[in-house]
Amino acid sequence: MATITVIGAGAMGSAVGRRLAEGGATVLTFLEGRSTATLDRAKAAGMRPTTLTEAIGADLVLSIVPPAEALGVAKTVAAESLRLAKPVVFIDCNAIAPATMKQVAETCAGTPVEVIDGSIIGGPPRPGYDPKFYVSADSENHTRRLSDHGLVVRRIDGGIGAASALKMSYAGITKGMTGLGTAMMLGAIRNGADESLKREIAESVPDIDKRLSASIPDMYQKAYRWVAEMREIAEFLGPDDAASQIFHGMAGVFEKMAADRDGDAVLASQLDKLLAVKEGK
Amino acid sequence: MATITVIGAGAMGSAVGRRLAEGGATVLTFLEGRSTATLDRAKAAGMRPTTLTEAIGADLVLSIVPPAEALGVAKTVAAESLRLAKPVVFIDCNAIAPATMKQVAETCAGTPVEVIDGSIIGGPPRPGYDPKFYVSADSENHTRRLSDHGLVVRRIDGGIGAASALKMSYAGITKGMTGLGTAMMLGAIRNGADESLKREIAESVPDIDKRLSASIPDMYQKAYRWVAEMREIAEFLGPDDAASQIFHGMAGVFEKMAADRDGDAVLASQLDKLLAVKEGK
Repeated sequence: MATITVIGAGAMGSAVGRRLAEGGATVLTFLEGRSTATLDRAKAAGMRPTTLTEAIGADLVLSIVPPAEALGVAKTVAAESLRLAKPVVFIDCNAIAPATMKQVAETCAGTPVEVIDGSIIGGPPRPGYDPKFYVSADSENHTRRLSDHGLVVRRIDGGIGAASALKMSYAGITKGMTGLGTAMMLGAIRNGADESLKREIAESVPDIDKRLSASIPDMYQKAYRWVAEMREIAEFLGPDDAASQIFHGMAGVFEKMAADRDGDAVLASQLDKLLAVKEGK
Repeated sequence: MATITVIGAGAMGSAVGRRLAEGGATVLTFLEGRSTATLDRAKAAGMRPTTLTEAIGADLVLSIVPPAEALGVAKTVAAESLRLAKPVVFIDCNAIAPATMKQVAETCAGTPVEVIDGSIIGGPPRPGYDPKFYVSADSENHTRRLSDHGLVVRRIDGGIGAASALKMSYAGITKGMTGLGTAMMLGAIRNGADESLKREIAESVPDIDKRLSASIPDMYQKAYRWVAEMREIAEFLGPDDAASQIFHGMAGVFEKMAADRDGDAVLASQLDKLLAVKEGK
């Protein structure tokens, strides 16, 4: 029986905490400064909020937070670790670029924190469904404790950066497709070509029609989180790769959709209406 | 029996010419300054190269050229039309933005040229396969002559710009997906995450795996043409839409792949090798 800390109790963090708790682990979390709603969600998932010192004293410490917060969490853990007498095994599971992941590792250099690169492919665990935890730079197989308590773990060759690179390239393709479809459907709507577009897609590329019809409505509530993730993907590709521009553009698309959701949701309702158009003339 | 001129005898233009000739039309073309290879391809397709004056005297004149040449063709036709005693029905079938299409129409204003907006969705016609010719601004149904002679024509509501907008949004999604997959696979290759990426895609999103495995190798030889098409899509979205950046980035990706093909094809062979990796660990 391991004690595992999950820093972050959003949709993913709390579902991972629940899975580990159901798998027999003692699950701690550190949520200083977070809302009562977040605390309640963590507790409902079987996680025990505690002090930072106790949290990082666990057998494993997972960071599952928005990409923009990843480095801050690592700094907090690194600083606190100097007060502990024992090593801290820290797995950054966030959707960050390999370069950002290397900054996380550098932040912990010279402290008792051992850093493992992790990334999560798929949505939050739920009954009958498991995302995959990819890990690299885990030479001592510390992450076996995650599989022992119910998570699906895949080890990949390579050091710090490899698991993050996998996440960046996978998300670039899958979330990128959602962004592309959103951008072009909005463009078609503005130019009166929307119904012809939807019918043509349904007829000639039904696999794309099926994917976009599911992924676009599913994106609205996540768009605000994807903005930072798209910027990480641009950073992953690097300024010398023209493709990094693609993801700066994608960040803008998701930013617009996030603002739409916070506002009158006009764009979302236009997209929903278009996605409901069926094949045939 | 109509006489139809196809300006341009590339892969698409010559295949369209062949289909129309097989459908009983007299097919003319104007290829001044083009290579012997192009002239031979046109003749083999049943098209008759002729003078500009005779070419634009046909019942219908189609422009099927690379996007960057579309406006030049329209200017040539408009100038020559002033020497004719009768109206010229001109269909721009090219992958150009609605704004570029409007420039085509403006170029012909005050001349005997009537402009119809057209766009082609799908590859060149071949036995058993038909692309679709979408047309807008064809109030007099001039394009019935295309369906009379074997092409599949779909009329869409809207004036000049509607058919072009449909093409831009459709190509933005389909070619954009190829560009996304190419960019991320190259990124994964540079970061050692390539085989994990391929296996994860094959396992969790097999529809995407199937599409990219077919579309990426098919793109190499077309990449140079797609550069201008991506810039047209960026123009279609307009500078106020962050998504236009996506397509400036895509243009760069296809530019790189075109240069790779003209050079040592290292990137293409890395991609081919990766696409051959099968699911499973």
